[in-house]
Amino acid sequence: MKAVLDYLKNHRRRHLDSLIEYASFPSISAQPSHAKDVRACAEWIHRHCASIGLNSRLVETGGNPVVLATTRRMARGKQAVKRPHYVLYGHYDVQPPEPLELWKTPPFKPVVRGGALYARGASDNKGQHLAHLNAVEAYLRTGTPLPCDVTFLIEGEEEVGSDSLPKVVKQWRKELACEAMVISDTGMPERGLPALTYSLRGIAALEIRLDGPNRDLHSGLYGGAVNNPAMALAQLLAQLRDDRGRVTIPGFYDGVRPLSAVERKHAKRLPTTPESLRKMLGVPALFGEKGFTEYEQRTARPTFEINGLTSGYQGAGSKTIVPSWASAKITMRLVPGQKPAHLIEAVSRHLRKICPPSVRLTLSKGHGGEPYQVDPTGPQSQACLRALEAAFGRAPVLLREGGSIPIVNTFSRELGVDVLLLGLALPDDNLHSPNEKFDLDNYTRGSVMSAHLWAELAPR
Amino acid sequence: MKAVLDYLKNHRRRHLDSLIEYASFPSISAQPSHAKDVRACAEWIHRHCASIGLNSRLVETGGNPVVLATTRRMARGKQAVKRPHYVLYGHYDVQPPEPLELWKTPPFKPVVRGGALYARGASDNKGQHLAHLNAVEAYLRTGTPLPCDVTFLIEGEEEVGSDSLPKVVKQWRKELACEAMVISDTGMPERGLPALTYSLRGIAALEIRLDGPNRDLHSGLYGGAVNNPAMALAQLLAQLRDDRGRVTIPGFYDGVRPLSAVERKHAKRLPTTPESLRKMLGVPALFGEKGFTEYEQRTARPTFEINGLTSGYQGAGSKTIVPSWASAKITMRLVPGQKPAHLIEAVSRHLRKICPPSVRLTLSKGHGGEPYQVDPTGPQSQACLRALEAAFGRAPVLLREGGSIPIVNTFSRELGVDVLLLGLALPDDNLHSPNEKFDLDNYTRGSVMSAHLWAELAPR
Repeated sequence: MKAVLDYLKNHRRRHLDSLIEYASFPSISAQPSHAKDVRACAEWIHRHCASIGLNSRLVETGGNPVVLATTRRMARGKQAVKRPHYVLYGHYDVQPPEPLELWKTPPFKPVVRGGALYARGASDNKGQHLAHLNAVEAYLRTGTPLPCDVTFLIEGEEEVGSDSLPKVVKQWRKELACEAMVISDTGMPERGLPALTYSLRGIAALEIRLDGPNRDLHSGLYGGAVNNPAMALAQLLAQLRDDRGRVTIPGFYDGVRPLSAVERKHAKRLPTTPESLRKMLGVPALFGEKGFTEYEQRTARPTFEINGLTSGYQGAGSKTIVPSWASAKITMRLVPGQKPAHLIEAVSRHLRKICPPSVRLTLSKGHGGEPYQVDPTGPQSQACLRALEAAFGRAPVLLREGGSIPIVNTFSRELGVDVLLLGLALPDDNLHSPNEKFDLDNYTRGSVMSAHLWAELAPR
Repeated sequence: MKAVLDYLKNHRRRHLDSLIEYASFPSISAQPSHAKDVRACAEWIHRHCASIGLNSRLVETGGNPVVLATTRRMARGKQAVKRPHYVLYGHYDVQPPEPLELWKTPPFKPVVRGGALYARGASDNKGQHLAHLNAVEAYLRTGTPLPCDVTFLIEGEEEVGSDSLPKVVKQWRKELACEAMVISDTGMPERGLPALTYSLRGIAALEIRLDGPNRDLHSGLYGGAVNNPAMALAQLLAQLRDDRGRVTIPGFYDGVRPLSAVERKHAKRLPTTPESLRKMLGVPALFGEKGFTEYEQRTARPTFEINGLTSGYQGAGSKTIVPSWASAKITMRLVPGQKPAHLIEAVSRHLRKICPPSVRLTLSKGHGGEPYQVDPTGPQSQACLRALEAAFGRAPVLLREGGSIPIVNTFSRELGVDVLLLGLALPDDNLHSPNEKFDLDNYTRGSVMSAHLWAELAPR
């Protein structure tokens, strides 16, 4: 291990140069005008993987190519040593950099400033998976036996929905069969405090529409004798949450589990306070389900959120109508133990029950995504925590995320393995915003963490 | 009177030709491309007024000209006979005819079909004030002494808000000083059932906006710990109306008067039934304040209507946000006895009181309009009812309208007189819609009614 760590220390400058080169590609998957840059970037990381000694191939998908690079020989049955196998996922595509005028330095001319590299994609996600590649390079170049085999799966459509990924995973299922997936594409709660994200919320989308009169009505001639669909919608929605912030739909909390003692202990170490969160969001006061901390509300409790309201006239001034219809876009967040279909069914049943007879209710189901959880006390989680502590010199926290990561479900479903989320992004890394950066200390420590990780994950 | 009525009978064909000519002008005030047609139409009605013996002038306004045509000599102090003076209001501009493909015959090529003249503006309002002009013509041409002086005030901006009218009324206040205004620009409840509209609802507009977080938030990362402004708005609005359809804002019903016995008696004669209204509006069930008929709900009770809702994402699919803000456009309808300013104040006070501390409330007042009422038992109302009965051969009904007519308030405020609303439009006249028509029997009877009206309004 010492040789590996020494190698990482001695090659810091070169590893930074690699990241600068990698981050120079405007590999913007959302913008067709950058298709050539996206492919050039894929070819660069493919060549890089090969150059450090990996068996790499560029897999065509119909969309952007996927790089599949492994420490194993790709042809099955010819492996010299039988080692545990892990797959590390990353993505070489980046968010659009716009608005360009808000960048202090050009997004694709990476610059080091204040201990960080500023470039679009530096943190999300080029720097994070390159850190892992550096660690594997160190093993291979120093001739240190890798405790595990590692396959890098680096795609180019993450920022536009990973459309080609499920097909690739299905097609290469045997080559991707592994003990677990590792992803560094999440965050740390603050600088110097490493984290293992062990839980994600799921999602279930629904559109509620109420139809009233067969046309917008003159509010003078008819107002008073006909239910206003916008008011009916307001009254329908208002009934779904009580004044203590609790969703009142029967069955809504079915399957929700309370935090364990271990989870609560970890939650207490998080740096966010209600006041810091309130200030960051710019609200006059926080509001959430009574009896839970803001962290639990955001990560361990299901939510019913209105994403949009539409009814009647929305232009300047006023229009004296009773609108013909009103609609609300809804997404619910689910926590581990819940199913999107069950929740949609519970909500639909309740809405049909409470909808007044003076309007017609139409429900349209949207996409759903399962919640996700890895046992934070399991051996793989414990291995992650040890690797994080070795690299950062501080006890890591176990973290729940309130959002959903669809690819995690793809991997979990297709490969039947856990996904270990070891994020290296800082809260102020400006992901998806101007002046994205990647902390260079996290880059170095990320490589060190990776070097330890393969050792910790291997059976002793 | 016999000479007058005989004249009207003998000149029916010619009066129809006049209406056909008048309705041929595409005097569409909303469309700048028709500015020339609007002016040509003004000049036509101005010349027509002069041709029947009125002292007519075309008053320039900066907008579309107003025709002022009187049986009096315009120079004050030179009147031969001191007679009571009434002002008849009408408008020569019309609604846009679009969508043209839905017209059976071209909107500005008037055609008689099934006892009605089909043309844009035939009923709203050219035919209705031309009926009055025909009656005055009959008096003048037969040498029958007019029991009253009548001044016709015919404007060309009614369909675009009558912007020039208040200025003209102010400027010509002395010439317009009168016993009362007469307007035939409303409707009859059904064919053969004449009506005097004696009450209009007023209006008060308000926009409610709730601001929450300083930007749209990721509903996964933050949802649960921050109040969703769309949900907060739904809950705010939902509290304003109970399940019996009653508005729960303190002071909302201040000043509302119950219908008198006379009013109730008239209301019972109206042909609309709850089921016919329900079918016409296409709603699964009517909904309104318990304890009142649909007619009272629509005309004699104030309302709180949401005209539009706006929040967050309204495009296709879903967007997983907690929207930064949400807003609702509101108009309230007031009944006689209520003041727009008082109602806005009552609503504002209540909203500020019940708004939760987790969002910021902004209220923007919009336009207001006073409700309007003429004493239905007063001498002028009684004169109208007698004239209607004489012309239509059936006891007329007293009618409340649920809408507002801003010019009625203008006249009432500027001239300090009552406005007598003697509508000749039928419910199926397609005002503002394709295939507008004016019933030719109503055109004839409208002239007869007008002939009787001046006699009935004059002191005996």
